[in-house]
Amino acid sequence: MTDTALMTDRYELTMIDAAMRSGTAFRPSVFEVFARRLPGARRYGVVAGTGRFLQRLAEFRFGDAELASIRPWASADLVDWLAEYRFSGDIRGYAEGELYFPGSPVLVVEGSFAEAVVLETLALSVLNYDSAVANAATRMTRAAKGRPVAEMGSRRANEEAAIAAARAAYIAGFSATSNLAAGSRWGIPTMGTAAHSFTLLHDSEAEAFQAQIDALGVGTTLLVDTYDIEQGIRTAVEVAGTGLGGIRLDSGDLVEVAADARRLLDSLGATGTRITVTSDLDEHAIAGLQASPVDAYGVGTSLVTGSGAPAAGMVYKLVARRGDDGAWVGVAKHSEDKASKPGEKVAVRTLQGGVAVEETVLVTDDEAVLAEAARAGRALQVPLVAGGEVDERWLGAEGVATARERHDASVAELPGDAHRLARGEPVLPTRFR
Amino acid sequence: MTDTALMTDRYELTMIDAAMRSGTAFRPSVFEVFARRLPGARRYGVVAGTGRFLQRLAEFRFGDAELASIRPWASADLVDWLAEYRFSGDIRGYAEGELYFPGSPVLVVEGSFAEAVVLETLALSVLNYDSAVANAATRMTRAAKGRPVAEMGSRRANEEAAIAAARAAYIAGFSATSNLAAGSRWGIPTMGTAAHSFTLLHDSEAEAFQAQIDALGVGTTLLVDTYDIEQGIRTAVEVAGTGLGGIRLDSGDLVEVAADARRLLDSLGATGTRITVTSDLDEHAIAGLQASPVDAYGVGTSLVTGSGAPAAGMVYKLVARRGDDGAWVGVAKHSEDKASKPGEKVAVRTLQGGVAVEETVLVTDDEAVLAEAARAGRALQVPLVAGGEVDERWLGAEGVATARERHDASVAELPGDAHRLARGEPVLPTRFR
Repeated sequence: MTDTALMTDRYELTMIDAAMRSGTAFRPSVFEVFARRLPGARRYGVVAGTGRFLQRLAEFRFGDAELASIRPWASADLVDWLAEYRFSGDIRGYAEGELYFPGSPVLVVEGSFAEAVVLETLALSVLNYDSAVANAATRMTRAAKGRPVAEMGSRRANEEAAIAAARAAYIAGFSATSNLAAGSRWGIPTMGTAAHSFTLLHDSEAEAFQAQIDALGVGTTLLVDTYDIEQGIRTAVEVAGTGLGGIRLDSGDLVEVAADARRLLDSLGATGTRITVTSDLDEHAIAGLQASPVDAYGVGTSLVTGSGAPAAGMVYKLVARRGDDGAWVGVAKHSEDKASKPGEKVAVRTLQGGVAVEETVLVTDDEAVLAEAARAGRALQVPLVAGGEVDERWLGAEGVATARERHDASVAELPGDAHRLARGEPVLPTRFR
Repeated sequence: MTDTALMTDRYELTMIDAAMRSGTAFRPSVFEVFARRLPGARRYGVVAGTGRFLQRLAEFRFGDAELASIRPWASADLVDWLAEYRFSGDIRGYAEGELYFPGSPVLVVEGSFAEAVVLETLALSVLNYDSAVANAATRMTRAAKGRPVAEMGSRRANEEAAIAAARAAYIAGFSATSNLAAGSRWGIPTMGTAAHSFTLLHDSEAEAFQAQIDALGVGTTLLVDTYDIEQGIRTAVEVAGTGLGGIRLDSGDLVEVAADARRLLDSLGATGTRITVTSDLDEHAIAGLQASPVDAYGVGTSLVTGSGAPAAGMVYKLVARRGDDGAWVGVAKHSEDKASKPGEKVAVRTLQGGVAVEETVLVTDDEAVLAEAARAGRALQVPLVAGGEVDERWLGAEGVATARERHDASVAELPGDAHRLARGEPVLPTRFR
């Protein structure tokens, strides 16, 4: 399906229709994506999805099929305008993989009201899901303290969301994914050996292990908990020898099971055989296994569902537009529980001795103030789209690799208590100037 | 993208590779999809996604691009076999929209091990997400007690998941969706009028309302809480007259705000103007508004994230396979926390006086037992795929309409306490015979 332009809420088109009648549809406008708070009372957030959004933007066109589907209720003027639609404005924002805090202007879309408002749903769908996964993933990779964590949650997420989740997890430090499409589309390393069904297919566990070793070599990882873990490990080492690459444990109390497995492997002489654990892990379970003889983790459900916060809570708000007199007007709605801050914003991560101390958001175009802020830290917004042209550096596998580096470098700037798993305040305050 | 065949975990292909070497890859096998428990301690589950899975199945082919991406690690034999892959077995299962309980065999896939195991990820991705949404949706539509509930969660879900969510919600009784692709692909009614940005774009709220009425008519719904709700309502009625179709409230304490809004509308003579509320609703908030003068609900985040249970927890397990001697063997893994029941199953909803009393799951091919069970209730499994041919009745908009009717009829069979929102036991016990 390539109906990207229909990944849109109907109200975006009815607004354009109505604004075309009142003569306001093409007022120059600025929309901003930001989160009012960090979901789950976490310490920081990770921007993910930007490269996917830009890739979708390039295919955001209303072709004959798309136009036919809205014609029953859309005006002829709206249909004509959509047929020619091509985003021609500018987009800047946080580089993918960058960290964000409440109020961080992670994406700023400038264009006519009509050409910018129609991107609301697409931008938020992509950023809210991908960032939710990255927010969970960064906690898991930090809790793993350098041990590799593999993504294997595809079976617990929508089939397209699964691919996006693998990508977001990789950006936030995961080592690999089980999802083949994520490997093919985004250049992410893939992994996987066997499920319980493979053992059950064979007449004995030993035959299953032998078949797997014949196909994948002795360095493979054998799943040993189909019948009885102790017997499974003994059989694995009997069949593979002490050079067996690894075993995987997918059930039971993993703290106990991993310790027993290590002892048994060592007693059998398989001292180099690695232990991978994969049963319902989240960042807390990973942290709980810190002292256990575990060599690698596999995470599924909790990753692809954002570990309790399945949507990042980002919103897409009009913050400024020009009036007929040519003057820019900062705008914001007034409701108590959902207020926003008017005006176009510039963001800087203020650093002291290389450590981040503040998210500084400037609502000004005073060059002196901006220059001073820039000297105190690192400018956070980068150009993504100029005059409708997407900067290709952010796309494809190259974009993913860049985002992974960005995440790593930005996390390294955080103060030490950023990685406490307990609920708390954002580790950096956001200051508006 | 049409890389459906790569929506697959790598271990499915490595298992086929290894099983081809041990001569077991083409053993006739039966896989079953079931849930060990209902997520969130709910009373019943709703099967959703079946039609989407069948549609994906028809495009599940390894073309040149897919094969190229796995060639670096796959054997030549595996690549050759995948190039010719076409599911040729049988699939039966619960009709989409049908209710399920712990252990219900909602999908049964029969074929060779290889051709069936490769569908694990696709089947689970689709069913786990779509059913999670339907599980939340059915509680919301029941809590609304006949008032229409519209789906508007696209901005809080992955862009493809959003379309699936709109579809699952419609099956479970939602009245419409904001998502245009869901309308176009699945024939679901779409709705939507305006966001706060539309009001902020104009020089005054009155101008914005006038523009919307000019475009959409006086029957439209005006969003009145951008600045001040009371003034917004007064302005709305001034501009539209007392024939105004509706107002939408998207902030504040909705119980209070809705009551105030109704009083004010009535006092202004707009007694027929409907009130739609849309701020962070879930099934509990909907139930809490039961006594309020609300005419319609719009639900976003909580719907598309499964209202606290974002994955349905279904698994895909080998339950039987033939050995080289031609005899069928029921199989199951033994781990304590993840045990499953061996053998191919038939399911009946046992009824008494038209009311469901038990989910009866039969592990037998004794015709007399099956006939007796069938007389006591309603057979739950229907043919979906025969000899690789998908039954087209379950596809497209027709399949969605059929599933919506199925949901409605099956919910009507449940005993009254099925709709209590509190955590609890499944409303029907599952009995294995």
